[in-house]
Amino acid sequence: MFDFRKIISATNSTLKEAILSIMCNNNKNMPGSIGIADLGCSSGPNTLIVVSEIIDIINETSRNLGISFPELKISLNDLPGNDFNDVFRSLPSFFDKVKEEKGAENCYIVGVPGSFYGRLFPKKSMHFVHSSSSLHWLSQVPLGLGTNNAMSSLNKGKLYISHTSPSDVINAYVSQFQNDFSTFLRSRSPEIVPGGGMLLSLMGRSSIDPTIEDGCYYQWELLANALSNLVSKGLVEKEKIDSFNAPYYAPCPEEVKIAVANEGSFIIDRIETFEIEWEASVSSNLSNEKILSSTGQQVATTIRAVVESMVENHFGNEILNDLFSVYGDLVDDYIYKKRAVYVNLVVSLKRKE
Amino acid sequence: MFDFRKIISATNSTLKEAILSIMCNNNKNMPGSIGIADLGCSSGPNTLIVVSEIIDIINETSRNLGISFPELKISLNDLPGNDFNDVFRSLPSFFDKVKEEKGAENCYIVGVPGSFYGRLFPKKSMHFVHSSSSLHWLSQVPLGLGTNNAMSSLNKGKLYISHTSPSDVINAYVSQFQNDFSTFLRSRSPEIVPGGGMLLSLMGRSSIDPTIEDGCYYQWELLANALSNLVSKGLVEKEKIDSFNAPYYAPCPEEVKIAVANEGSFIIDRIETFEIEWEASVSSNLSNEKILSSTGQQVATTIRAVVESMVENHFGNEILNDLFSVYGDLVDDYIYKKRAVYVNLVVSLKRKE
Repeated sequence: MFDFRKIISATNSTLKEAILSIMCNNNKNMPGSIGIADLGCSSGPNTLIVVSEIIDIINETSRNLGISFPELKISLNDLPGNDFNDVFRSLPSFFDKVKEEKGAENCYIVGVPGSFYGRLFPKKSMHFVHSSSSLHWLSQVPLGLGTNNAMSSLNKGKLYISHTSPSDVINAYVSQFQNDFSTFLRSRSPEIVPGGGMLLSLMGRSSIDPTIEDGCYYQWELLANALSNLVSKGLVEKEKIDSFNAPYYAPCPEEVKIAVANEGSFIIDRIETFEIEWEASVSSNLSNEKILSSTGQQVATTIRAVVESMVENHFGNEILNDLFSVYGDLVDDYIYKKRAVYVNLVVSLKRKE
Repeated sequence: MFDFRKIISATNSTLKEAILSIMCNNNKNMPGSIGIADLGCSSGPNTLIVVSEIIDIINETSRNLGISFPELKISLNDLPGNDFNDVFRSLPSFFDKVKEEKGAENCYIVGVPGSFYGRLFPKKSMHFVHSSSSLHWLSQVPLGLGTNNAMSSLNKGKLYISHTSPSDVINAYVSQFQNDFSTFLRSRSPEIVPGGGMLLSLMGRSSIDPTIEDGCYYQWELLANALSNLVSKGLVEKEKIDSFNAPYYAPCPEEVKIAVANEGSFIIDRIETFEIEWEASVSSNLSNEKILSSTGQQVATTIRAVVESMVENHFGNEILNDLFSVYGDLVDDYIYKKRAVYVNLVVSLKRKE
């Protein structure tokens, strides 16, 4: 989930295939310009890595096909609260680099604020849609599990699906994922040209069983354990943990296949899961001080960057330092005892003709 | 220049004509979607006013023509330093309003960071381009007048063209405007579909003489006088004024006509100048405290918001309060003695078929 560079390099060959297929397909009927979107682009040093990779592949493919570099229309999407200013301020030097290194003049980048669980782009405007590390975020806390809802406190001592979760909780998560993923596909369907492609990578799991450790332990189970530890120290109320349910779901390939089949306008070219070692997820942007700390504390820093605002909203900011310190220790314990992996699910889809 | 609402309402009929002409033209050969851009969109309460107005006009025109509301692709452009976050965060409620009031579902808004003195959009992607209160900003200080350049201190005691400016200074401004405006037109030319339109409003002047008061007194001449006043108080060095030349130009209609004719891909449908009283330019967003102050101080607040960062960069921030207080007094004196107007130039262009 967290080190985009590693995930991107793991999916690079799939990305190449997908783009080659689109460009060859379009060659028959070349529109002269290619629409590309990156959904959940975020902001920071990783934002333009995928775009840069895509430009490289298109550049190489154009040369191989003996055609000139096509006009690229690139849309960077994220929620309206994303720091687009930061992204936009890095564009002038990015364009300079692209021009200098690839001689690509005709590349246009726009920012598109909005939820990908809804329409984002005009009809048939996209040839290739990419999303990395975003689609495991649900559109909301699963129906019925939100604060003050009937089942909001059923998932005792947990933040996400766990082996102790009652079936009502698991079912609520499963349904919310099917709903959201179907909405996602239905929203993209009119936007992508026939023959166009979509490459999605998200947190997943290796088994149909949603309580399997590789799908939930990394962030949520150990974070719940860390919170319980703070309960015993009198820093957190037990009920606070019961009433938190993360708007997150790590699907298995079969669940993705079901949603794709039900929605009906895409076919799956390829679907794969990758195991990634927890250690490998540590952000390469850590300061020197952090690099000197234990692997567990480094994992804690990485996870904290992702879940902090959510945890802070529910539990308050006073506990954050203690929480992630304990969490880091639990990660170290876990890594010592077991091979600790999480799963990345990569799916390459094609819009039916 | 500064109260967009007033300028927009002054140009509303021209906007209506331009959009009607585009929609009727496209009806022959309707692409199903309309590309619209607002160049120099800025950020704040006025940013979406033009877009809202355009949506209203398209909605009304669609009903009159008996066609369904077309897909709208709206691009909001400004420099990469603009606060796009602010604009983007206001979009969800804007979309809700548009859906509720106009039933328009198929409206897409993107942010496009970059200078309009260069390419911004893909080929033939725009049907209508709008820009209000931006094109009087040159791409740079006129060639030769920049700090440390040969002529940088020729314009003694002034910030912009004045009746005391030597002809070399005036010529540098005139050439820079011709260069910039031609670059602007050349950049838009491939982006706008044949028959597409462009409506530009900018600060201008009523006469061929570039030293005429309605083209320079409002901001620059009185601001130079205010700075001279601070020189006499020992707060500003005289040489500092000499070496500042604003990257600004208020053209007369003839100069715009020359640039359009030379570039060659547009025809002028309409070109007009409006006189606007200084009092009318006062921002409607002033706080109560400001509203109670004199007209001159209100004008000073409005002008300060526009030129502050530029003035601060050159003269430092210590003098800002004194400067705009003296400037406000000078505005009051001027208004007392004369009918004080500035000129807005509005030009409606059509892309040749």
